[in-house]
Amino acid sequence: MSREQRAGAVEKETGRLESFSDGVFAVAITLLVFNLQVPHLPGAISMPVLGSALLAQWPSYLTFMTSFATILIMWASHHGLFKLVYKTDTPFLFANGLLLLLVTVVPFPTSLVTQYLITPAASLACAVYAGVFVVINVAYNLLWWAATHQRRLLHPAVTSRQVKRLTRNQLLGLPLYLLATLLAFWNPYVSLGLCSCLWIFWAFTYYI
Amino acid sequence: MSREQRAGAVEKETGRLESFSDGVFAVAITLLVFNLQVPHLPGAISMPVLGSALLAQWPSYLTFMTSFATILIMWASHHGLFKLVYKTDTPFLFANGLLLLLVTVVPFPTSLVTQYLITPAASLACAVYAGVFVVINVAYNLLWWAATHQRRLLHPAVTSRQVKRLTRNQLLGLPLYLLATLLAFWNPYVSLGLCSCLWIFWAFTYYI
Amino acid sequence: MSREQRAGAVEKETGRLESFSDGVFAVAITLLVFNLQVPHLPGAISMPVLGSALLAQWPSYLTFMTSFATILIMWASHHGLFKLVYKTDTPFLFANGLLLLLVTVVPFPTSLVTQYLITPAASLACAVYAGVFVVINVAYNLLWWAATHQRRLLHPAVTSRQVKRLTRNQLLGLPLYLLATLLAFWNPYVSLGLCSCLWIFWAFTYYI
Amino acid sequence: MSREQRAGAVEKETGRLESFSDGVFAVAITLLVFNLQVPHLPGAISMPVLGSALLAQWPSYLTFMTSFATILIMWASHHGLFKLVYKTDTPFLFANGLLLLLVTVVPFPTSLVTQYLITPAASLACAVYAGVFVVINVAYNLLWWAATHQRRLLHPAVTSRQVKRLTRNQLLGLPLYLLATLLAFWNPYVSLGLCSCLWIFWAFTYYI
Repeated sequence: MSREQRAGAVEKETGRLESFSDGVFAVAITLLVFNLQVPHLPGAISMPVLGSALLAQWPSYLTFMTSFATILIMWASHHGLFKLVYKTDTPFLFANGLLLLLVTVVPFPTSLVTQYLITPAASLACAVYAGVFVVINVAYNLLWWAATHQRRLLHPAVTSRQVKRLTRNQLLGLPLYLLATLLAFWNPYVSLGLCSCLWIFWAFTYYI
Repeated sequence: MSREQRAGAVEKETGRLESFSDGVFAVAITLLVFNLQVPHLPGAISMPVLGSALLAQWPSYLTFMTSFATILIMWASHHGLFKLVYKTDTPFLFANGLLLLLVTVVPFPTSLVTQYLITPAASLACAVYAGVFVVINVAYNLLWWAATHQRRLLHPAVTSRQVKRLTRNQLLGLPLYLLATLLAFWNPYVSLGLCSCLWIFWAFTYYI
Repeated sequence: MSREQRAGAVEKETGRLESFSDGVFAVAITLLVFNLQVPHLPGAISMPVLGSALLAQWPSYLTFMTSFATILIMWASHHGLFKLVYKTDTPFLFANGLLLLLVTVVPFPTSLVTQYLITPAASLACAVYAGVFVVINVAYNLLWWAATHQRRLLHPAVTSRQVKRLTRNQLLGLPLYLLATLLAFWNPYVSLGLCSCLWIFWAFTYYI
Repeated sequence: MSREQRAGAVEKETGRLESFSDGVFAVAITLLVFNLQVPHLPGAISMPVLGSALLAQWPSYLTFMTSFATILIMWASHHGLFKLVYKTDTPFLFANGLLLLLVTVVPFPTSLVTQYLITPAASLACAVYAGVFVVINVAYNLLWWAATHQRRLLHPAVTSRQVKRLTRNQLLGLPLYLLATLLAFWNPYVSLGLCSCLWIFWAFTYYI
């Protein structure tokens, strides 16, 4: 068959890999709701007591929103990356699997920070949280490298400029999340604040 | 490439955004089942005791059905909105992300009402519940505005009449859910009843 | 546009309704795994003790498999039904929503039977379990009626024979599940056995 | 209609079966995160205490990664198998359902090993874990047999060489997982190690 027909056939594989990945992203992002627990009030229940208990849970709201936004950006980046890729091979498939494993893990450090942010162990919890994002960034770089190595999985129409811009964006995240990880041992709130701001930065630099 | 081919290519992006959104809606609506807890019976177990315990859980059945119906309507509205949109850009993408975040949150106020409906804190629980729907309505209006601003993401074939009708429907929800939020402090059951009736109203005004 | 082009456009709506429904079915069927709990062993842990505890959980394995098989059959029936439908309207959309609500509920009576099968309240638990399937069957009949009423949503190529056969199969389930519900008050194991056998019956009468 | 048009129509059925299966795989793989529990620290909380508690959970990290990788490989194999299949029938549909049931079960033995790996009951837990993979391999062989029996569901273009290679790969897994099951009674760590290594083996022998 012609090259064109072959590419059309291979697109279907990318299609199913994308839909499976979308499924994992959708479930991981939705499972974050388990981070929002209804407070259990021993003793007399009243509106002020419930209101205070709800406010006291602010770490869970903050981490829920930060993690949701970060996974959303990851999905958008994944989507953007797949627009440039038109076929897959085994290394790419398993680099993608590593990325999905790490996305799946995000609810765990999110719960860790929720539970230990206002304790003496906050630094370690926030370091684990930022550290997971460091490893996710490494996984993204691996995935992008698997796609761009000798341009073997890229659409022929993809320009060098597009490749360079995406490479630069992927690499930029690494030192910033490393910084957030180290900052956690100085002040966990600053580390968490940096993680919250970073998704805003990605949002403004992201282009479909 | 021609405009037509370009539009065809861009459709695919909308397609993946839709499938990711459908995934989040599907998971959020299904996770509501965790609101239905099997009663634990200390002491002697018998059919009347289990029957009484199951009936005593009526708040969880009511909120489960109301939340399920409301998320279903949200999905149908989302589907209807995307029928008029043929491409995406960054503001639209993140307005959609905000909407998904709020849809993801719905199981939390649902559990809150389930647990505190028959306590002195019912008003606050129902106010949070209706308040989440207020914010969701705002998010929908943001999404629709991001799509219609200068008609930049709309299909050329979309008529002004369609735009006006959808805009009116989106805006109408805001005062009604605000009313439900305020009513919660007067009588939480009336507030919950209004939330339950509102999805019926949307069901009858909804057109594919 | 021509009727044909219009139908092509409408197919896309059915496509998204199907993918959303598939998402709910997939999540509901997978959440059944929460019915399988790891036993907690107080006191000395050894292989015979763990083995006994795992065997003592046989109600959870039985109900997990029955519920999984039943939801799978429901999905296959849903798939078969949608093959005959080529467009949607509002009543059909909400009949489908009712069906999804009930599919979403299945893990709850499944847990109820798991927990109370070997107690004096087993009859009530099994009656609720079979009763949910009765209501699901009613929802299926509603959905099918919404599609076939004046043939308004059916593909023109669908034969009367196909319609009659599917109608007969849908209706047949109702008395059988009603019987299982009533049998629960005589002997809950017979009721559960009938529910387990019914999916086998559907499996053999099901045709793609 | 022509054979070709008929095949095109039937492809759509395979498409929906694939998307439903992808949904179950995506949810099952993501639910593994519940295996990662945030440690609860009674008494004084500090970074060393939290750090020790996190390290003490190494069985959950190991089983999470092994199960994630194994389900990922299963999904890739499923994807590879469906590339060769172009239509479905009832036996194939239910063989696929059996496979999905077993994939859905994986979080349960994963939790079992997490909880009992460092107890005297480790052998039984690891035997159940490896045993589930034995049964999954049997289900895969059933599915492949349902597809290849008289070549009735295979694409005409599929070569005998492709069929033989996939058959050999499917069959090879059976004795290896059986070995892991038996090894569990000699040394549970060796059994778990073999399960961890097996997915690496499949990864290197897997071709899209």
